[in-house]
Amino acid sequence: MAVSSRQKTLFLGSFVHSKSLGELEFLHDSAICVDEKGVIVAVEKGCGQDKVEEIVFPKLGWTAGEVTVRTSQPGQFFFPGFIDTHIHASQYPNAGIFGKSTLLDWLNTYTFPMESSLSDAAKAKKVYSRVIERTLSHGTTTASYYATISVPSTNLLADLCLEKGQRAFIGRCCMDSLAPDYYRDVSAETSLADTRATITHIAGIDPTNTLITPILTPRFAPSCSRDLMNGLGALQKETNLPVQTHISENKNEIALVKELFPEFDSYTEVYDGHGLLGPKTILAHAVHLSEAEIDLIKKREGKISHCPVSNSSITSGTARVRWMLNKGVEVGLGTDMSGGYSPSILEAVRQAALVSNHVAMGGDDSAKLSVEEVLYLATRGGANVVGLGEKIGGFGVGMEWDAQLIGMGQVGSHEKCDTGPVDIFGWESWDERIAKWVFNGDDRNTLAVWVKGRLVHERILQ
Amino acid sequence: MAVSSRQKTLFLGSFVHSKSLGELEFLHDSAICVDEKGVIVAVEKGCGQDKVEEIVFPKLGWTAGEVTVRTSQPGQFFFPGFIDTHIHASQYPNAGIFGKSTLLDWLNTYTFPMESSLSDAAKAKKVYSRVIERTLSHGTTTASYYATISVPSTNLLADLCLEKGQRAFIGRCCMDSLAPDYYRDVSAETSLADTRATITHIAGIDPTNTLITPILTPRFAPSCSRDLMNGLGALQKETNLPVQTHISENKNEIALVKELFPEFDSYTEVYDGHGLLGPKTILAHAVHLSEAEIDLIKKREGKISHCPVSNSSITSGTARVRWMLNKGVEVGLGTDMSGGYSPSILEAVRQAALVSNHVAMGGDDSAKLSVEEVLYLATRGGANVVGLGEKIGGFGVGMEWDAQLIGMGQVGSHEKCDTGPVDIFGWESWDERIAKWVFNGDDRNTLAVWVKGRLVHERILQ
Repeated sequence: MAVSSRQKTLFLGSFVHSKSLGELEFLHDSAICVDEKGVIVAVEKGCGQDKVEEIVFPKLGWTAGEVTVRTSQPGQFFFPGFIDTHIHASQYPNAGIFGKSTLLDWLNTYTFPMESSLSDAAKAKKVYSRVIERTLSHGTTTASYYATISVPSTNLLADLCLEKGQRAFIGRCCMDSLAPDYYRDVSAETSLADTRATITHIAGIDPTNTLITPILTPRFAPSCSRDLMNGLGALQKETNLPVQTHISENKNEIALVKELFPEFDSYTEVYDGHGLLGPKTILAHAVHLSEAEIDLIKKREGKISHCPVSNSSITSGTARVRWMLNKGVEVGLGTDMSGGYSPSILEAVRQAALVSNHVAMGGDDSAKLSVEEVLYLATRGGANVVGLGEKIGGFGVGMEWDAQLIGMGQVGSHEKCDTGPVDIFGWESWDERIAKWVFNGDDRNTLAVWVKGRLVHERILQ
Repeated sequence: MAVSSRQKTLFLGSFVHSKSLGELEFLHDSAICVDEKGVIVAVEKGCGQDKVEEIVFPKLGWTAGEVTVRTSQPGQFFFPGFIDTHIHASQYPNAGIFGKSTLLDWLNTYTFPMESSLSDAAKAKKVYSRVIERTLSHGTTTASYYATISVPSTNLLADLCLEKGQRAFIGRCCMDSLAPDYYRDVSAETSLADTRATITHIAGIDPTNTLITPILTPRFAPSCSRDLMNGLGALQKETNLPVQTHISENKNEIALVKELFPEFDSYTEVYDGHGLLGPKTILAHAVHLSEAEIDLIKKREGKISHCPVSNSSITSGTARVRWMLNKGVEVGLGTDMSGGYSPSILEAVRQAALVSNHVAMGGDDSAKLSVEEVLYLATRGGANVVGLGEKIGGFGVGMEWDAQLIGMGQVGSHEKCDTGPVDIFGWESWDERIAKWVFNGDDRNTLAVWVKGRLVHERILQ
């Protein structure tokens, strides 16, 4: 199991990360030391290799000969890895295919048939391998995945994430109601037993959850019986595992929940009433929440995964992120692929800005999210949502090295390789470079990716 | 001047283009013959090389030895080149840089300083060369450009488009009012004289407008005096040249127009009253038009350039494209870079779909534009907007070969090169492949680009 970097590394050059929601910190000519376990043991501002070797290494008990050095070239910078707080690995082959559908018909037309087909192990391996490689190439160092209802294929996703070195939460979809006969858990009992089977499997491959953690995954209230949700709530209490589900994505879905669970006053109360709303719960979408619902989520310390690409694609609505943040609720970004068409969190970053503009065009100018804010959501915000705010999402001593090296093309440099879609003319400020990356960047700008100190993706520039 | 292909070419394989607004036509195992002038002289469905050489070549008087053959590989297809009906070449270095601005402060903060700086010929050459290369690489075979107020730098843009082989409308920005002292035409007279100077220059380099056409460009009503607009209206009558301007982009702008031109009942009537609204007029944005305005535009046969990326970026609003189309007005797509962050029409295609979804979320489900419809806007729609509907935007005998070859990556094919962001698993229908390209594709999928039969861009796969 390749879960550690197994080597001491000195990273040199420029580092950029979120200092707060609205502010990026730029550390130039700086150094970060990462130990064999992938943990950051030193962050030195304005400090070159010589000085680090002379002053910092002795404190760490390091000698220069045993340390690998990785330097960002001028204009390049290290940035925290992205955290995708909501992604359906099993829907990857449908990315971009959704027609004019909305949530409920989209599930039946595109999603359930695809997910069901991944009970074929060979197909699952092909799809899951590719989605992990792709998301790593887009800088996603942590993903909270939905797999399918199949135990072997969910376990395979866990195995592949561990092998390829992506930090992941792996959820077997629990759904014993209102789904087609060909793709539904037989009963609450089998659904719970199957979920335990994936938990046991992951305990076998990564006992201390260094990279892989199971996550309890009631698909969404309409596809879960009361018994199943109660059982998952009890399992959460027993195991203290995180929970992920969908909430308040689409108006027809909300009406359906009201019809199916008339004893509850809101969608949020349905989860709360079954023991599924707590500080380790990730609620995806949250587009149409009421004041009472956001207040309850805040009270329970529940987390929200904002999925702007998905919400604009299958016309769910425009989530009011500023309102959530003002309420003090933690928000991260999710691709929600393939409700969202893209596996890239950078695309979600861009669309989070645009969706916030659409909210602003509805009348509330303060709704607009800045470049700094959407990048915060993709890193520190996401880390808080998945409960790893102390470990990832930024650079600090004691945190783990989940990072990406970003580079952009210099106009006139006559590089033979494809340096990507961003053109830097040379007169841009650092804020402007970051804005250019956010709005026009893609996986070509992500030159290398590390998780827990291990190099898990590198773009070979030819 | 390299304005013709100078060789007969036989294109073989799959061809996809719009049959109508809502329908794509797929021509597989087909052949298109393009003559030395870049004109399509034969379109043969279901017809391989042997059959073409045997049956079609004799009719054309062609012999196999003199014909270059270009074949799309399985999964690849030829598609009409994109038409960008509204793009500011001079703003390219600012792509992605707009902060939280809206139109009027955006102009003063980012745009006027950049445009003004391009009076430096060396800088203009660097920027314009790059924007042409970039837009060609994104498949833009025709662009309706705004340059700056500078005559030499506007002429340079025309020269570079001709040299690099992009079909272009070149507009010197006319603006003698309400602009900063450092960047404004001195008077209506100088503005008109300078405009005539660029028309004369283009008549010298491309007398029959085979590729390059001047376009009269009153920036927008607030920056034009009545004399200037009247003068441009008269010049249009004299020359029959096309006109481009902005209209009804932003609510503060509309209020400003109302204040500046109290004698007119609407923004549209301001242009109409100065002889600037006719069948050759391209109106960019048209976000907040009234019923009376769209009816007047229809009556005058004016055209609309829809700029969804820009409208969502600088929070202008959501243009009602379905409503325009239902009124019978021709609509094309514009990047409006750098109000829009991207030089790619494919990005505008994507965002046109998303913006139409936002209009639909406002209550009118019929507003949603399909994949087929947004691709129509980018090709045939754009061709009609720039007055070249008979020549470009689709494949037909007598039309010119403005085309791009599209390819996507096959999962598991182990190609060493970067085949781009789209993954084809092999089980997708052609409609699904197109949807994947539209939502996740980028310039890596545009393998080659031709304008008027001339190969003007090719991606070297290593």
